[in-house]
Amino acid sequence: MLSRENNDLLTRTNPDTPMGKLMRCFWTPAMTEAEVPAADEPPVRLQLLGEALVVFRDTEGRVGVLDQQCPHRGASLFFGRNEEGGVRCVYHGWKFGVDGQCLDMPTEAPDSPMRCKVRARAYPARLAGGVLWVYMGEPDKMPPLPDFEWLGLPSSHVYVSRWEQDCNYAQAMEGELDSAHVGFLHSLVDKTSDDDRALTGRFFKNDKAPLWKIVPSPSGFMACNGRRVDEGQRYWRLNQFLLPFYTMIPPHPAEARLVRMWVPMNDERCWVLCATFRPDRPLEDKELTAWRNGDYAHRRVVPGTTRPTERLDNDYLIDRQQQKTVSFTGIAGIRAQDAMVAESAGPIVDRTREHLGTSDRAVVAMRRLLMDTALACAEGQRPVGPDMPHLYSVRATQTVLPESLDPTESDDLMGTARPKEPAAT
Amino acid sequence: MLSRENNDLLTRTNPDTPMGKLMRCFWTPAMTEAEVPAADEPPVRLQLLGEALVVFRDTEGRVGVLDQQCPHRGASLFFGRNEEGGVRCVYHGWKFGVDGQCLDMPTEAPDSPMRCKVRARAYPARLAGGVLWVYMGEPDKMPPLPDFEWLGLPSSHVYVSRWEQDCNYAQAMEGELDSAHVGFLHSLVDKTSDDDRALTGRFFKNDKAPLWKIVPSPSGFMACNGRRVDEGQRYWRLNQFLLPFYTMIPPHPAEARLVRMWVPMNDERCWVLCATFRPDRPLEDKELTAWRNGDYAHRRVVPGTTRPTERLDNDYLIDRQQQKTVSFTGIAGIRAQDAMVAESAGPIVDRTREHLGTSDRAVVAMRRLLMDTALACAEGQRPVGPDMPHLYSVRATQTVLPESLDPTESDDLMGTARPKEPAAT
Amino acid sequence: MLSRENNDLLTRTNPDTPMGKLMRCFWTPAMTEAEVPAADEPPVRLQLLGEALVVFRDTEGRVGVLDQQCPHRGASLFFGRNEEGGVRCVYHGWKFGVDGQCLDMPTEAPDSPMRCKVRARAYPARLAGGVLWVYMGEPDKMPPLPDFEWLGLPSSHVYVSRWEQDCNYAQAMEGELDSAHVGFLHSLVDKTSDDDRALTGRFFKNDKAPLWKIVPSPSGFMACNGRRVDEGQRYWRLNQFLLPFYTMIPPHPAEARLVRMWVPMNDERCWVLCATFRPDRPLEDKELTAWRNGDYAHRRVVPGTTRPTERLDNDYLIDRQQQKTVSFTGIAGIRAQDAMVAESAGPIVDRTREHLGTSDRAVVAMRRLLMDTALACAEGQRPVGPDMPHLYSVRATQTVLPESLDPTESDDLMGTARPKEPAAT
Repeated sequence: MLSRENNDLLTRTNPDTPMGKLMRCFWTPAMTEAEVPAADEPPVRLQLLGEALVVFRDTEGRVGVLDQQCPHRGASLFFGRNEEGGVRCVYHGWKFGVDGQCLDMPTEAPDSPMRCKVRARAYPARLAGGVLWVYMGEPDKMPPLPDFEWLGLPSSHVYVSRWEQDCNYAQAMEGELDSAHVGFLHSLVDKTSDDDRALTGRFFKNDKAPLWKIVPSPSGFMACNGRRVDEGQRYWRLNQFLLPFYTMIPPHPAEARLVRMWVPMNDERCWVLCATFRPDRPLEDKELTAWRNGDYAHRRVVPGTTRPTERLDNDYLIDRQQQKTVSFTGIAGIRAQDAMVAESAGPIVDRTREHLGTSDRAVVAMRRLLMDTALACAEGQRPVGPDMPHLYSVRATQTVLPESLDPTESDDLMGTARPKEPAAT
Repeated sequence: MLSRENNDLLTRTNPDTPMGKLMRCFWTPAMTEAEVPAADEPPVRLQLLGEALVVFRDTEGRVGVLDQQCPHRGASLFFGRNEEGGVRCVYHGWKFGVDGQCLDMPTEAPDSPMRCKVRARAYPARLAGGVLWVYMGEPDKMPPLPDFEWLGLPSSHVYVSRWEQDCNYAQAMEGELDSAHVGFLHSLVDKTSDDDRALTGRFFKNDKAPLWKIVPSPSGFMACNGRRVDEGQRYWRLNQFLLPFYTMIPPHPAEARLVRMWVPMNDERCWVLCATFRPDRPLEDKELTAWRNGDYAHRRVVPGTTRPTERLDNDYLIDRQQQKTVSFTGIAGIRAQDAMVAESAGPIVDRTREHLGTSDRAVVAMRRLLMDTALACAEGQRPVGPDMPHLYSVRATQTVLPESLDPTESDDLMGTARPKEPAAT
Repeated sequence: MLSRENNDLLTRTNPDTPMGKLMRCFWTPAMTEAEVPAADEPPVRLQLLGEALVVFRDTEGRVGVLDQQCPHRGASLFFGRNEEGGVRCVYHGWKFGVDGQCLDMPTEAPDSPMRCKVRARAYPARLAGGVLWVYMGEPDKMPPLPDFEWLGLPSSHVYVSRWEQDCNYAQAMEGELDSAHVGFLHSLVDKTSDDDRALTGRFFKNDKAPLWKIVPSPSGFMACNGRRVDEGQRYWRLNQFLLPFYTMIPPHPAEARLVRMWVPMNDERCWVLCATFRPDRPLEDKELTAWRNGDYAHRRVVPGTTRPTERLDNDYLIDRQQQKTVSFTGIAGIRAQDAMVAESAGPIVDRTREHLGTSDRAVVAMRRLLMDTALACAEGQRPVGPDMPHLYSVRATQTVLPESLDPTESDDLMGTARPKEPAAT
C-alpha cells in the first residue's frame, strides 16, 4: 500500500516531478531503429515523459529529436520539411539542425542576433542495439549509454519491437517483476496437458508461492524467486530490475534472451520496448517471423502501428469459452494477458487500496528503490547508474539448486547474473 | 431555483456525499434478473452510485456483487474466472466468495493471516420481483427489502427492463413527477384525431394547468394532480414518489401497473429500471413482445445492450416533418421524449437558472424531501423508509371526482393509494 | 512572448472575462444568412463566445437568437417547435418570441405574473451582407452595425461562407495578420515554375523578410508590409485589423475583395467567416462554384456541414511526396495550410514559450491592442469602434512604390485604405 503522495511520487514523470527529474538523468529508449525515418524523410511524432517531440534524420543520417513545437510561434514541426541538413518549419521557413541550432531564419535580416539566440529544444540521440536512445537531462551531465549486452551484438542477432500500453509505466512494470503471477495468468486450464516448455511450465505449476530473495545492486536489484520441485530441490529464477525502468526475465534455455523497457509516454500511458537477442548466433527467419507477428516475447499490434490488437476497449477479445476449457484468461497472447491485469486496474492504479502479500516482494523493492532514488535525486544526489554503464551488463538467469543452497551462494547463478567488470567493456 | 450548493447536494451520490450516504441506507435496484449471469458464468460489470462493481452467481446460484478491483493489486475481476464457489482473479488466483471472503490465496502460505484479513468489498444482494437488489450501506443496518406490490407477484405477472439515461438521476426523475408535461411533450399535433386512450388523452388535452395537492407520507409523498373535465368534474391522478428514487404513475385502466426506478450510475448518468406487472393475471405474449421491443412503458434499446436507440448524439432521430404534422416532438417513443427533455438540459442541469411554476409542485416537493432527508441523515438521523418496508406497498391511481371534492377525502382514491398495513405483508 | 496571465487575457472570451466583455460591446458575426432557417422552420444550434444558443426565424421572418436552454427547467429549445410567432419548448409548451418574451405559458393560470416575469435570454440579431449579426452586450448600449463595404452591396455581389477551426480565435487570426508566412507556407517548391499570380507570387518569392509599418486607427490598425523588388522599388501590402477580430488582406487585383472574421465559438475553437465580394459587379457563376467548393479565399468542408475536410485528426491529408516535389506543405488548400500551423500549436498556444521576430510586428500589435482595449473596457472605458461604424469602411490594398517613399505618404495607398467619412455612409 502506498500513500496518495507516494503514489504520485512513483507515477508522475513530467519535467518538474522528482521521478521525472530522476529519469532524465538516464538515457531513455524511445523507439526502434526501424521506426526512425531515413535521411531527409519526413519527421515522425514521439511522446516521451509527457513531452511532445519529433524525430528525424538529417541529410547526413544524424538523428534529431526536437520539441514538436517550433520555437517561433509553436506550429508543429511534424508537418515540417526535412531537407538539406535540418527540419524546416513550413510556417516561416525557420530551419533547425539535429542539435536544435537554427540554420536558417529567412524572415529575419542576415545579421539578426535572433539567428543565434533562438534554438529548438533538442535532445541528444543515439542509435544502438536497434533502439533510438534519447537523453533528456542536463546537457553537461550526459552519461554514456548503458552497457546492455545486446547493444554490443551485431544487428543480425537482435530484434526489437515497440508497442503502447494504456496505463502508467510503473504498474505495467510491476507485472514483469511479479514472478508469482506466471503460474496463474499465463497458465493453461487443462491440467492433463503437459506444458512443452519443461523448465518453466512444470515448475510454475507445482509451487504457486515462490520464495523471494532481493539482492540489491548499485543501480537496481536482482529478484531471485525459488519454487520447490521434486526431490528436495528448488527452481530459482533470477530476474533483474535496473533503474529506472528496465526488467529482464530468464528465457527458456533454448530461447532468445530478452530485455524489456517500460518507458513513460505520459502519466497514463507507456511505451513497452522489447529487445530479444541471441548472443551466440544470428536470428533465424522462423524467430523473426514469429516476433514480427507479435508472438512470444513481443505483442501483436495493428499492422503499421504500435496499437495492440487486444485492448481494454475490446475486452482484449476475451473468449469466455476458451477461458473455461483452455487457458486461464481466455485471452490470446502472454503480453495481452499482462496488459489486461495492468490496464484493467485503471490508468494509474489506486495503491492506497491494495493489499500486498509475500508474492509482491519484488514489486515493493522496485517502488521503494525508485522512490528513494527520486527523492535523493531531488535533493541533489545524482544516481550512480548513469555513470556506471557496466552495471547494466547483467543477465537474468535460472537454475535448479538443492533446497539447502542459498541462490546468492551459487557461483553458477551469480556469475551469470552479475555485471561484467568495467574493464571488460 | 436551487443554489449551487443545493444543486450539488441533490445530485451528488458518491460514498462521501450526503445524498450518497442517504441512498446507501436503502436497497438499490441494480439490474434485471435476466441480466444477472447464471451460476458459474463469467461476471458482468455494473456501475452504481459512482462505484465500479462486478456481478456474478456462484456455483450454488448465490449472487455476488463485488468491487470490480481485486483487493490485491487492483486487476479487474470482470476478467476473472467464476468457478467452484467464487470469482478467481486471473492475476494471482486469489478467489472470493459472494460475501467477499477470500476462499483461496495460492500465492501465500496456507497458514498466512492474510487469507483471513483480506476481503473483497462485497455488497449483499437479493433477487426479487425480477430485479437484483444491492445493499451498499453499513452492514449492521441492513434493512428488509421494500414491500413493493410487484415483489409479491409470481414472475409470470411481471416484466422488468433497464436502460441508460445520460443525465443525473434527479433530473431524469423530475420528468416523471412532472405531470403537467404530458399534455405537451407526449401529445399529438393533429387536433382532430381522437386519442384512443380515452381516460388520459382527452383529459390531458383539455386542461393544461393541473391543480396540485402534495400529500406527505413517512417515506415520500403522493402527488395528486387534477384536471378540469366537462360537467364540473375533475380528473385526478395520484402519482407516488418514494425515497430515494422511486416513482409510480397511474396506468390506463386497461393496462399494466408500473414502477420506475431512477438509479445513479454516476453523477452524470443513471439507470432507469421499469417494472410493469399485472396483479390479476399472467402477462400475455402480446404485452411481452411489445415491451421487449421498447414500447409503451419501456424504452427501445440497441439489441443486447442497455443503450437507447434514440439519443442526444443522434438528436433522438427527430423527424422535423413529423413534428410539424403528427406529434409534438417528432421523436418516436414516450420514453425517448422524456429522455430528450432531461438530457438536453445537460448532464447536470444548472438549477440556479431555472424558473419554476405552479406545474413544478411535485418536482419541488421531491427535491426538498430528498435534500432535507439527506441533511438529516448526514447529522445521524436515519431515514424511516428502509425500516418500514410496508410504506412501499402503495399504488398510483386515478379517478374522476366532482370538482367540489378534495381528492384526499376520496376514500376510493386514498384507499387504493395508501400503503397496506404492515401486518398484511 | 506573453505571460501566462496575458495569454489568458487574450484568449478567454466567456461572459465574465475582460476579453469577453470587450467583444460583447460589438456586434458578432455568427453564421451565414444561408444557414439561418426559413420562417417557421426548426431552430438550429449556435455556439458563440462560449454560450449555447438557438437561431430561428419567426412567422414574420424575424430572426431570433435565444439561449439554448429553456428558462423553465433547461430543456433544449433546439428540439422546440417554431410556430406562429415563436419557439415553443416541447416540454411544457412555453413559447418565446424573437425578443425572448414569453408568448404562452399554458401550464400557468392566464393571469399569472410569471407570464411577464419569465423571459428567455434573447440577443438582438440583424441580417446584413449575407451574415447573421448578433449583439450579446448590454441592451441599452446596442450600437449600429459596423459599416463594412460589403454590407452596402447588393446580395448578388457578395458570397459568404463559414467553417470551424479547432483552436482559439486569437491564434487563428494571427495567421492572417502574419504576412511573412505567405512566401513559405503557401509557396510552391518547384522554383522554375512561374507563379501565374504575378503581383503577389513573384514579390513574395524574392524578399522573405518584409519591412513593417503599423499605422494605428481608432479601432484597429493598418499593417503595411513592404518587400523589395527589382529596380529600387518596394511592393507594399496594406492589411487591415479591426477590433475585435476582423482582418482584411489585399486580393490579387483581378480578384474579389475579402474580409475574414475570427469569431470565438468557445476558448478552444472558433468560427471563421469569410466574405468575398465585387464592389463593381455581380459575382459570376464560375467564382461562386469555386468558392462553394472551398477554393481560394474559402475552405473545403464536408458537404452540408461546417467541418473542414482537412483536419488535425487526419493530418490535413498531407501528401509527403507532394511536399517534396510540388508544394511547400504537401497540404491542399491555402486555408487548410493556415489552419494546420494554427491548430498544430495546440488548442490554445502556449505563448510563454514563443520567440517573436521582426516578422511578427502585426501579431504583436494585434495582441497589444486587444489586451489594452479589454483592460480599459474592464475598467469602464467603452471602446470607440462600436459607436463609430464608419471606421469599418476601409480596404486592404497594395501597390509598388519607389523605395524612398514611405507608404503612409502614398496618397494612392492611404486614400484607398482609410475609412470613408461618416457623412458618406
